[in-house]
Amino acid sequence: MDEFGLIGRYFTRPPRHTALGVGDDAALIDTSPGFQTVVATDMLVEGVHFFADADPRGVGHKALAVNLSDLAAMCALPRQALLGIALPAADAEWLVAFADGFAALAERFDVDWVGGDTTRGPLNLCVTVLGAVPRGAALLRSGARPGDEIWVSGAPGLAALGLAHLRGDCTLAGAARAAALKRLHTPEPRIGLGIALRGIASACIDVSDGLLADLGHLLRASSAAMAGCAGQEPGTGDTDVVPLLAAELQADALLAPLHAVLADAACTPFPERVRQAALSGGDDYELLFAAPPDRADAVRAAAESAATPVVRIGRVQSAPAAASATTALPVITLIEGGGGTAVAPTGYLHFG
Amino acid sequence: MDEFGLIGRYFTRPPRHTALGVGDDAALIDTSPGFQTVVATDMLVEGVHFFADADPRGVGHKALAVNLSDLAAMCALPRQALLGIALPAADAEWLVAFADGFAALAERFDVDWVGGDTTRGPLNLCVTVLGAVPRGAALLRSGARPGDEIWVSGAPGLAALGLAHLRGDCTLAGAARAAALKRLHTPEPRIGLGIALRGIASACIDVSDGLLADLGHLLRASSAAMAGCAGQEPGTGDTDVVPLLAAELQADALLAPLHAVLADAACTPFPERVRQAALSGGDDYELLFAAPPDRADAVRAAAESAATPVVRIGRVQSAPAAASATTALPVITLIEGGGGTAVAPTGYLHFG
Repeated sequence: MDEFGLIGRYFTRPPRHTALGVGDDAALIDTSPGFQTVVATDMLVEGVHFFADADPRGVGHKALAVNLSDLAAMCALPRQALLGIALPAADAEWLVAFADGFAALAERFDVDWVGGDTTRGPLNLCVTVLGAVPRGAALLRSGARPGDEIWVSGAPGLAALGLAHLRGDCTLAGAARAAALKRLHTPEPRIGLGIALRGIASACIDVSDGLLADLGHLLRASSAAMAGCAGQEPGTGDTDVVPLLAAELQADALLAPLHAVLADAACTPFPERVRQAALSGGDDYELLFAAPPDRADAVRAAAESAATPVVRIGRVQSAPAAASATTALPVITLIEGGGGTAVAPTGYLHFG
Repeated sequence: MDEFGLIGRYFTRPPRHTALGVGDDAALIDTSPGFQTVVATDMLVEGVHFFADADPRGVGHKALAVNLSDLAAMCALPRQALLGIALPAADAEWLVAFADGFAALAERFDVDWVGGDTTRGPLNLCVTVLGAVPRGAALLRSGARPGDEIWVSGAPGLAALGLAHLRGDCTLAGAARAAALKRLHTPEPRIGLGIALRGIASACIDVSDGLLADLGHLLRASSAAMAGCAGQEPGTGDTDVVPLLAAELQADALLAPLHAVLADAACTPFPERVRQAALSGGDDYELLFAAPPDRADAVRAAAESAATPVVRIGRVQSAPAAASATTALPVITLIEGGGGTAVAPTGYLHFG
């Protein structure tokens, strides 16, 4: 079967929100007055983002899920997806399962699969998603201000523990193992929560690099916005600006959701591994967001309406004057055991 | 330098048509009432779409150009591009040149570079482009009808001759070699021509798989539309429908632009190689389009306004009844030397 057969057989679904879907040079989307189009792209590489022997259905799910998570972080409603795929060979069994996983998630979030490109090459999946948000309603990374509370959905660190289990670095069992592997292989994009947080949260990002790292991105983008450089994240190369914001995190609150999952486990990983997973583990695709303290009840109501657990884990602060002078990285202080420790906002780096 | 440094240094340009560009979870685009958003994605793999030692500036140009060509074929105005890139290593020299080639073409077509993803992996470039077209004005593949004349821009086959030269299969020299290598490495997307053809042409496709193959796509999509299956290209797997359309091509007209380029050459490839390049060579990214015969002057005026040469190469016909019964492929008859030969609408297949 050539690539046109592959596309026709596996990658074609009738569109619902799209004037013209798969089959022409491009897709056509009717624009909606009063809305903005939200667009993001994420690439998954075999051996980097998933194991070569990973269940193809899970790979299809994850390729779309990590992209939808970007739309969730902007509180957008997903509408369309495109898939660029490089395949070493046309393996029909793999493709059927992959396309099923992708299409099932698309179906669940009412996303039209409107185009893409199929080519030969080392396995690579590049998904682009489009969504819609009422004009001005998107939650940016840059909206956090001193005094805002910091929240996160789900149980950050769960995916990292699942990966550690698969690598033999720790042993999970029972419900904890199931939950960790599910979060790792088939993460749930927090679309409902993102939409429910419109008008409530002040800033939002999805946790892909690790909680501390992504909190660092949020603080840097918000610092830049306060300094008048909206839309730019400083701290990278030539574009450094002084970090005006810092944050304080409560370790007990941050670890509580993960401990709750592990409570069922026959055996539990070392406490330090659990702590590291929650602080620096990537691949959770939870929403990390800030909201003014007087919106705490509204945050809880939004989370309940989206049937997504959230926990308040800390607070945005003005950066101490001493810190701004010496580093471009925002200072994050972790409160645990009665004391505070400065922790670095770092996570997984592809070229670190 | 980590990927945030790479993105900040090489992949960040200030946007002009975009509410929010690089640096957040997604980009935000203001939608324009009365317009449709046009979106396409194309993936380029090292060793498949370009040589490992290809000039990185040319690779950057081509990665964007082949995507803009899809917008040209829909007669859309390009507005935004996103780049997913997998790199085996962070090679600053390569990246500077690649980003320069990409950004220079983006600049020339006033395209905002609004996002992407950078990861480690075998070299892979996945570009997504967004454009705008007045509602209902897009030229689809499916609009050709019996009696329409068939036109193509530029000199189809030029890129294939350039590739043959690089492979040592033929020897080009002088202006012909320069023109062929330019078309192969830095193809010019026919944006101006696509826009000028709004309201004049009846159907359009860009030539990426080869002229006969892409004419076959156009005829099949138009057949499907005539049969009432708009938006679907038949002839692939389960979705076959009877081809209602055929085409007649004039070899002399089709080969004339390529012969004109080769007239300057110190030595000329074998006639059969030139003929095959024009009929089946891919990678030209010219526009192949149909228009009613009474719009021929309007086509010529559009081409002149876009400063893009076009040539009329044949005519769309109703399929002979005998053919429809025996094959799902449209019949294309090549008229040359006073006779007609049936030629198959096939081209480059990644999994052929």
